[in-house]
Amino acid sequence: MFGPREECGVFGIFSKADCATSIYHGLSALQHRGQESAGMAIARHGDIDLIRGMGLVNHVLNNKTVGDMKGHMGIGHVRYSTAGESGITDAQPFITKGADIQFAVAHNGNLVNFIELRERLIERGHTFSTSADTEVISKILVNEYLKEGDFFSAIKNTTHHLDGAYSLLIMTPDELYALRDPFGLRPLMMCDFPGGYAFASEDCAFETLPSKVIRDVKPGEIIRVSKQGVQTDRIGKINRRAHCMFEYVYFSRPDSTINGVSVYRARKTLGKLLARDFPVKADIVSAIPYSGVASAVGYSEVSGVPYTEALLRNRYAGRSFIMPSQAKRDQIVRTKLIPLEEEIRGKDIILVDDSIVRGTTMRQIVNLVRQVGAKKVHLRISCPPVIAPCFYGVDMQQYKQFIANEKTVEEIGKFIGVDTIAYNTIDNLVEAIGIPKKSLCMACINEEYPTELGGLRAKQMKLTES
Amino acid sequence: MFGPREECGVFGIFSKADCATSIYHGLSALQHRGQESAGMAIARHGDIDLIRGMGLVNHVLNNKTVGDMKGHMGIGHVRYSTAGESGITDAQPFITKGADIQFAVAHNGNLVNFIELRERLIERGHTFSTSADTEVISKILVNEYLKEGDFFSAIKNTTHHLDGAYSLLIMTPDELYALRDPFGLRPLMMCDFPGGYAFASEDCAFETLPSKVIRDVKPGEIIRVSKQGVQTDRIGKINRRAHCMFEYVYFSRPDSTINGVSVYRARKTLGKLLARDFPVKADIVSAIPYSGVASAVGYSEVSGVPYTEALLRNRYAGRSFIMPSQAKRDQIVRTKLIPLEEEIRGKDIILVDDSIVRGTTMRQIVNLVRQVGAKKVHLRISCPPVIAPCFYGVDMQQYKQFIANEKTVEEIGKFIGVDTIAYNTIDNLVEAIGIPKKSLCMACINEEYPTELGGLRAKQMKLTES
Amino acid sequence: MFGPREECGVFGIFSKADCATSIYHGLSALQHRGQESAGMAIARHGDIDLIRGMGLVNHVLNNKTVGDMKGHMGIGHVRYSTAGESGITDAQPFITKGADIQFAVAHNGNLVNFIELRERLIERGHTFSTSADTEVISKILVNEYLKEGDFFSAIKNTTHHLDGAYSLLIMTPDELYALRDPFGLRPLMMCDFPGGYAFASEDCAFETLPSKVIRDVKPGEIIRVSKQGVQTDRIGKINRRAHCMFEYVYFSRPDSTINGVSVYRARKTLGKLLARDFPVKADIVSAIPYSGVASAVGYSEVSGVPYTEALLRNRYAGRSFIMPSQAKRDQIVRTKLIPLEEEIRGKDIILVDDSIVRGTTMRQIVNLVRQVGAKKVHLRISCPPVIAPCFYGVDMQQYKQFIANEKTVEEIGKFIGVDTIAYNTIDNLVEAIGIPKKSLCMACINEEYPTELGGLRAKQMKLTES
Amino acid sequence: MFGPREECGVFGIFSKADCATSIYHGLSALQHRGQESAGMAIARHGDIDLIRGMGLVNHVLNNKTVGDMKGHMGIGHVRYSTAGESGITDAQPFITKGADIQFAVAHNGNLVNFIELRERLIERGHTFSTSADTEVISKILVNEYLKEGDFFSAIKNTTHHLDGAYSLLIMTPDELYALRDPFGLRPLMMCDFPGGYAFASEDCAFETLPSKVIRDVKPGEIIRVSKQGVQTDRIGKINRRAHCMFEYVYFSRPDSTINGVSVYRARKTLGKLLARDFPVKADIVSAIPYSGVASAVGYSEVSGVPYTEALLRNRYAGRSFIMPSQAKRDQIVRTKLIPLEEEIRGKDIILVDDSIVRGTTMRQIVNLVRQVGAKKVHLRISCPPVIAPCFYGVDMQQYKQFIANEKTVEEIGKFIGVDTIAYNTIDNLVEAIGIPKKSLCMACINEEYPTELGGLRAKQMKLTES
Repeated sequence: MFGPREECGVFGIFSKADCATSIYHGLSALQHRGQESAGMAIARHGDIDLIRGMGLVNHVLNNKTVGDMKGHMGIGHVRYSTAGESGITDAQPFITKGADIQFAVAHNGNLVNFIELRERLIERGHTFSTSADTEVISKILVNEYLKEGDFFSAIKNTTHHLDGAYSLLIMTPDELYALRDPFGLRPLMMCDFPGGYAFASEDCAFETLPSKVIRDVKPGEIIRVSKQGVQTDRIGKINRRAHCMFEYVYFSRPDSTINGVSVYRARKTLGKLLARDFPVKADIVSAIPYSGVASAVGYSEVSGVPYTEALLRNRYAGRSFIMPSQAKRDQIVRTKLIPLEEEIRGKDIILVDDSIVRGTTMRQIVNLVRQVGAKKVHLRISCPPVIAPCFYGVDMQQYKQFIANEKTVEEIGKFIGVDTIAYNTIDNLVEAIGIPKKSLCMACINEEYPTELGGLRAKQMKLTES
Repeated sequence: MFGPREECGVFGIFSKADCATSIYHGLSALQHRGQESAGMAIARHGDIDLIRGMGLVNHVLNNKTVGDMKGHMGIGHVRYSTAGESGITDAQPFITKGADIQFAVAHNGNLVNFIELRERLIERGHTFSTSADTEVISKILVNEYLKEGDFFSAIKNTTHHLDGAYSLLIMTPDELYALRDPFGLRPLMMCDFPGGYAFASEDCAFETLPSKVIRDVKPGEIIRVSKQGVQTDRIGKINRRAHCMFEYVYFSRPDSTINGVSVYRARKTLGKLLARDFPVKADIVSAIPYSGVASAVGYSEVSGVPYTEALLRNRYAGRSFIMPSQAKRDQIVRTKLIPLEEEIRGKDIILVDDSIVRGTTMRQIVNLVRQVGAKKVHLRISCPPVIAPCFYGVDMQQYKQFIANEKTVEEIGKFIGVDTIAYNTIDNLVEAIGIPKKSLCMACINEEYPTELGGLRAKQMKLTES
Repeated sequence: MFGPREECGVFGIFSKADCATSIYHGLSALQHRGQESAGMAIARHGDIDLIRGMGLVNHVLNNKTVGDMKGHMGIGHVRYSTAGESGITDAQPFITKGADIQFAVAHNGNLVNFIELRERLIERGHTFSTSADTEVISKILVNEYLKEGDFFSAIKNTTHHLDGAYSLLIMTPDELYALRDPFGLRPLMMCDFPGGYAFASEDCAFETLPSKVIRDVKPGEIIRVSKQGVQTDRIGKINRRAHCMFEYVYFSRPDSTINGVSVYRARKTLGKLLARDFPVKADIVSAIPYSGVASAVGYSEVSGVPYTEALLRNRYAGRSFIMPSQAKRDQIVRTKLIPLEEEIRGKDIILVDDSIVRGTTMRQIVNLVRQVGAKKVHLRISCPPVIAPCFYGVDMQQYKQFIANEKTVEEIGKFIGVDTIAYNTIDNLVEAIGIPKKSLCMACINEEYPTELGGLRAKQMKLTES
Repeated sequence: MFGPREECGVFGIFSKADCATSIYHGLSALQHRGQESAGMAIARHGDIDLIRGMGLVNHVLNNKTVGDMKGHMGIGHVRYSTAGESGITDAQPFITKGADIQFAVAHNGNLVNFIELRERLIERGHTFSTSADTEVISKILVNEYLKEGDFFSAIKNTTHHLDGAYSLLIMTPDELYALRDPFGLRPLMMCDFPGGYAFASEDCAFETLPSKVIRDVKPGEIIRVSKQGVQTDRIGKINRRAHCMFEYVYFSRPDSTINGVSVYRARKTLGKLLARDFPVKADIVSAIPYSGVASAVGYSEVSGVPYTEALLRNRYAGRSFIMPSQAKRDQIVRTKLIPLEEEIRGKDIILVDDSIVRGTTMRQIVNLVRQVGAKKVHLRISCPPVIAPCFYGVDMQQYKQFIANEKTVEEIGKFIGVDTIAYNTIDNLVEAIGIPKKSLCMACINEEYPTELGGLRAKQMKLTES
């Protein structure tokens, strides 16, 4: 898949030293999960300080803004807005200060019942000043706290309201909570290092911490870290796990290991299985960089067809100030991808990419490869056809945007302009990830939504669009 | 007074055409009231869009951010943070969306009972995600609306809770409200132009609107503009007026006319009265630019002592990248002010400024004037000695920061290093503004706070500091 | 005169300590003489290092670029490009490295025979890689050095070729030269301070240097500073002096004293003489800020008509991102100038400015004053009518651009829309400056060019244009 | 090789339409050859306009600066400064305007006898205002033109003086010349398209031009394009060719084809030959991205050892504002390279890179790979050991900087920390490029300098350093 389609990333730390720098480094490592806004909240002297802004981590968290942020515990967030409103309003963490209660929330995931929750709260007289789901979660948490009088219990009760994906970091002036929905839809990792504990969406964020032990926060697990140590509990009854398969296919950084599975190895295996089941005679196998490389390498390994670079990413591609008026949309692809004619001309080429959504960009890329003389072009896609919307945090929201809903695989191949095309099967996807099928969320390819509401929502959407 | 000490500015418009450009121009004209953040909210199709950011109006509201903002009604805000926390959290307008209720608030002023109101709401289970008074006002307004079921009444009832200064613009998707506290502490103007109505902190903001009729929003007046026209009502019982005298002395733009009084004329008259009552033999009368010029000109007119420029502001003064390590604090004054030795050397000079708070900057300025050869330096201050904190929106918050609390006038003169010093009397201040004494707020110079709580607060503060 | 019309500024220093910071401060104080480019050259270990760039001193000379610049001697330059080509090519200082010769040149002024000199050099086989006069001067200097074998003599001989205005700083790896054309057209000052010597276009640039003795570099004087001390000589035969009167009227910073004359006092006296000779009954006298203020103050002093501010400069005026399409040119003036209606309405007002070139901007300003209710507007101009081009460094180059060539004074007043108009006489100008008429260059108002070629050039231009 | 070590790039065009946009696109495609400065010169109405500045093409050539540049013929340049002085002074193109002569020069390459030429010119009385070789070339060209009276002949004669590498574009107001030194050291390509002709360092720069015929400018060829058409001639007597092998190994963009040889294929073949001659048992073969990928792919193809990504480049690596004080130099490598532990742990890995200069960065990279669990690390280097300085445009200037001069291959392996290490042989290098050994310049690996002076210079350098 070409171009960014990331979601969000969270990082939290409880330590014995000032932690702003660690949060900065952690968020930087998670930058691929969101480039739109960044923020951090740090606890100090019973209060919580906050910095938020639009842009990359480097831009928002600089010496000037972070200089004064002192404190041993904090949480941070990077964000890619999936829905429309992308103003500063919705940068995270989100702060709440109330009676005997003060906390900050950083969230990765998406609530299926966000609208219902918000409306129910609104019906009960609550109001909202942002369009963020963190505000909804925060208000429920306050309500539950008022009932329970205990923050830990309140968080647990809060989760009873939530339907969907949530990897949450919640910080009071004294405690740091990390929790993950019972399905384990989005990743969340814990790091135990000399001097403290850290949490992050992916383990690559712990790189700068000293000798450490890393594990997943378990689906349905809630962890509290405070001066009293670490305390763990369960939220809800765990029916099944439903780890998002798209984290492996596209989202996560290749060097991350989530749910015990190496992202890079999963991607490579996807390529191997494509080679095993959808072989084709060709001169070379290549990738759409960067997302398809691991699978292409795997395809090559199994098929014996040599891997080579046929398309390079242009490192200096940026905003062009002088754009000729005759610029067509395919010229944009052209400025970002450099085809290696020498490798391509006269060759039968197998192109590997992670997934296809609309198919239009892929069509331009194939056209580019044809222009420089490819004899045959065979397309192999790591991920089975995407046919259904995601309600758990991936920016694919409408049935009609998926080409696989309107065309057969053969027709897609014709539209894109390739000689042959093949997608991995769902079984292959499961085999590549190595997690039992029933423990994965593959709703976007098999319409089996892990939560009832997800399924209902999908049905409604299908009806609406038709 | 040297350096910025502004508060906030608001602008709102109800018209028949897209209004984003008008809001931009209005806020630009109010830029002197706040350079820290800017924002605008515009109503469209039953919803409210929002842009907010840190920096000047020019920076926050540019073609990229404003390009998509369509709609005939909107409000805007420029802000100077008086209290500590100056993150993006608190940029205005503040949005609230709830059951059958949606509105944006832009506020100029300060609530004396902000902490009490917030705590009372917190006690009742409310929580806050910002430290802004607009969030407090918005929550009360929602509560009142739930009781009343009518927005107009709800606003009126809301004001019963508020103690202090508030010039508010409140916008629902259909209506624009403008209201001013019964004391009329902060200014708020209304403009009736062909095609609609506009509101602003000062009339200079209406400059780009076509042929118009301008008037003050009356103290305690609330105005609703909608498709049904203009409706006016009263909030609270009006005991007295208490127009902030500092708007005339320092805050407002010289070309503004507020409460029917020309700001520039008031300043000039202050100078005239200083000349009448505190004459001194001298060669020239001059000002600390820019705030003292009008009074100096007035002093000259009455005294007959010729006005001249003795100190110029350096137009190119900015951040110096190369600052020699031996730089003393007085060198900072030196890079901003240029003394005209030719005019000063050997002369007896009368220096006029608007006010003195700490006295330290003034001391450096006088030192500068001495260095270039002034024979005698006589200081004349438009505003009587500032001795008490302001709880209505001016950034003067502690008794101990006022030199006039620790020294007699004579001692102040000695500290600053002048030959003679005189402040205007309170009577002169009243005479210059031309509004009856009982209709002015002069708490910072006479400790007569217009609201009970203001007086209490001042007493507590005095006790605490001593 | 409204808007910048500056030329260039130079600064040089020979000291016992690293001088980059001093050059930075010196150039900052001269920023009003040129905002387009800045640069500095510093001698170190027998070589000369160079930084040049587009923009303000603050921008070009920052910690990053200046950090490495070490050395006890250096020269710097700020520039406003008068002629067309304003690329980076022409930023100064200009460096020359040749056989046994190495030097940097910073120049303020303009050579009348620049084209002839360049063409003569070109005819002799020289080539040019910039369009700067410093390149021409440098080439001549090299030629002379080759003849003389002595740098001091070479500089002196070089000046025999130059016709026009030149205040030059020339630096070899060991020596610093300062020289000024025999007419003294442009200013050049010398500062003797403990530890070294400095030179600058205006004495305000010496402000940060310790206890010092300042004097003009005399017209036709050349000064060499080296480890051997200070050596002085004469260049050319001095017929007469011809100090540019426009330095007093507009160019120089008000606190400068050049040729022994205080700039501010000259401007103020111009206003006094206007009042003496061109009195008019009025309610107030005011200025076009900032350039007309000193004269307005002087006018007030003599006439007894009270001085007041009627127009303010808008401190926050900048690039407007959102410009309404209907914006007329006079709205640009409107965003920069704020009229004080209170002071103006119903009044007879005397407006004072330094000079008129085209008259179009003045017309808009008068219109603005009329709009806010001025009853009568009387215009008084410090400088006699400008009618002829300047070839010595002022950006006034064509006969047809001067309104005074096409209209009588009365017609100008009618065009601008004032009730009465008066310019100072040439005699008054001379009296105000206090330098004998024969020692001033007033070519732009009396067509008496101090150099023969200047006169010829003017005649040719007149013929061409008619 | 890790990090940029580029030189310069040139682009020129003669067409029938405004060419500024084409130059912009051409230079953008050559951005990898120089990121320090950019510039373009365009001929119009018998004159030459110029823009130059520091930074990327995107930054220097924007709508504001390029907007006014009209003309059908122009040349452009991107630059990476190899020598010390990197001020704006030396941005290209360089302009010369003299008697009957006007031209702009853009140069890629380096003159061995630059200092001698400059000194000889200096001895003859010439002076220099920059430290650029283009100024030296321009001065010689002027001298020759004065002798010859014909520009074409003058250029030819100029080349008789030049020793070293030069791919030059020279433009007069009417003509565009392209020439390449007789050795063909640096690349230079010609493009014949409908409507005109273009020249560029690499053919990737012609991508946006319509249907075209591309060829190398031959070594020793000079081409003139004017309204009279295309004229070709020879410069000097061609002894041998000496194409820089490093263009294939590292410099050029992979999709370029220079001297008839595909850069990517040459790199891939280098890997194949490494596999053939220096095989080693291992689990995976991988590359230091980006420069080693093509060779690693080739190595895999021949060896059968599967290629995989073991190290990824961090796309978001940039200036870190918050750098912990304990940051060690190897952490910088760590922020730029992401090791894939999953692929590396427990594996015997073959790492492929293009070349080694100092060996210190490679040592850190190997350390990184060891840290994540590599069992064995085998290093394979495409380019034979670099042992001698380059005088023809590559930034390798001192004997002592090459680790291969101080250590045997075995010792290098030990220093870097690998289990085995192997460099390609010179014969393999020749075979991979496919150009006869005698037609390549491999001076930096065999000390056989194509020009006599190059050899002398190297000997002197060796003596000096020892």
